[in-house]
Amino acid sequence: MTITVHGQATSSCTQRVLTTLFEKDVSDFQLLHVDLSTGAHKQPEYLALQPFGVIPVVQDGDLTIFESRAIIRYLALKYEDQGSPLYGRTLEERANVEQWLEVESQNFHVAASAIVNQLSSRAKKGLPPEEGVVKTNMEKLEAILDVYEKRLSESSFLAGDFFSLADLSHLPRTKSLVKSCKLPHLITSRKHVHEWWQRISTRPSWIKVIEMAAPSK
Amino acid sequence: MTITVHGQATSSCTQRVLTTLFEKDVSDFQLLHVDLSTGAHKQPEYLALQPFGVIPVVQDGDLTIFESRAIIRYLALKYEDQGSPLYGRTLEERANVEQWLEVESQNFHVAASAIVNQLSSRAKKGLPPEEGVVKTNMEKLEAILDVYEKRLSESSFLAGDFFSLADLSHLPRTKSLVKSCKLPHLITSRKHVHEWWQRISTRPSWIKVIEMAAPSK
Repeated sequence: MTITVHGQATSSCTQRVLTTLFEKDVSDFQLLHVDLSTGAHKQPEYLALQPFGVIPVVQDGDLTIFESRAIIRYLALKYEDQGSPLYGRTLEERANVEQWLEVESQNFHVAASAIVNQLSSRAKKGLPPEEGVVKTNMEKLEAILDVYEKRLSESSFLAGDFFSLADLSHLPRTKSLVKSCKLPHLITSRKHVHEWWQRISTRPSWIKVIEMAAPSK
Repeated sequence: MTITVHGQATSSCTQRVLTTLFEKDVSDFQLLHVDLSTGAHKQPEYLALQPFGVIPVVQDGDLTIFESRAIIRYLALKYEDQGSPLYGRTLEERANVEQWLEVESQNFHVAASAIVNQLSSRAKKGLPPEEGVVKTNMEKLEAILDVYEKRLSESSFLAGDFFSLADLSHLPRTKSLVKSCKLPHLITSRKHVHEWWQRISTRPSWIKVIEMAAPSK
C-alpha cells in the first residue's frame, strides 16, 4: 500500500520523514505537495488530517499520523527488519536513540531553529536579526555542540556506533545552519562533530532528499 | 536490580519518570535527591551522568539514561508486559501515543512552561510577569486545548481509549497551570478536557507522586 506524505520537500520536518523512508528502503510512497503560500494547510480538508495546520502528515492505509518525530519512530518500527536499524537492535540501544533524539528535539532544535529564524527566515522577509536572540541562542548552541563533541569522541554516531533516528533528525537544521546561515565554523571548529557531520550528510538517503528539495531546472 | 532516579520529587520532569514507574508496578527503585540549591547538578560527578547538568537521570544496571521522555519510553518498553499498557498494544496504537507525546513536547509543553515560568517561577523571585509573553503563550495554549477538546470528544484519552505516556506526560505541567498559576478555567471551560483531567489526575500513580512531592510534616 502506498504511503502518502503531505508536505514540502524543502521543509525540515518533511525532510526528516523522507530521509527515513529512503533509509528504510521504502520506495512505495508519494509526496503530495502542500502549498503553504496559498494557505492550503489551513483549509478544512487539511485540518481534518492535521488539526494544528502544519506539515507534514503521513497516511498509511487507515492510519493518519503527524509530528515528524512521531512519524519517523513509526516508520523505524514498522520497517524494523529492512534498511538501516535506525532504532538500534537492543533495548539499551533504543534507549540511547531515544535519549539523543530527545536532546535534538528539546535542546538542539530549539536553539538552532531560533538562529535559523533570525539569520535566514527574517532576512528573506527583509527584517534584520534581533541581536539579543541570536546571542542567547548561539551561546546555548555552542554549549550543546561541546557536549556533542565529547560524546562523538566516544562513538561514531550520537546513540552509538550506528546511524540512528537521532543523527538523522539533526540533518535538516544543521544544513540550514551551515548553508543558509553561513555558520560552518559551528561544525568545523569541533573535530568530532565535523567528522560526524561529514559522515551523516553524505548518506545516499540525505543526498536524495537534497535533490528532491532543489529547485527544478 | 534497583533502578536509581537522580532528581527531585517536586520537579516536573522527575515526576514524569516516577509516575511511569508506579504505572508499571515497579517498586524496586530509589529516588536520589539532587540538591539544585547547592548546585549539585553542576558538580563533575553529576555531569558525568548528565552532561547538560539538568535532572533527572536514571541508572538501570549498566545503562545511564537522561531526558524524561526518553526515560519513560524506555520504562514503557522494558516493562511492556506489566502494569498499564502505556505504549498501546499495536503498531497503530503506538503511533498514536508517539504523535500525542510529541504534541505534548513540541506544543503544549512549550506554551505551558512559558506561562508557568511567567506566573509562578518569576513570582517566587519577586519578579512581575512579562505581559506580552503571557499573552502570546496563552493564545497558543488556548488553541492547543481547543484541538484537545475535539480529540477528547472522540476518545477517553489522547491516543485512544487507553491511558498512555501521552496523557501521563501532561500531568506535571497541567497541575502547575491549575494550582500554581491559578488557571483552572483553561481546563474546566472545556467539557471533554475537564473530564480527561479528572480521569488522569485521580490515578493512584499520580496521587503517589503528589504525596512524594508534598513538604514533609
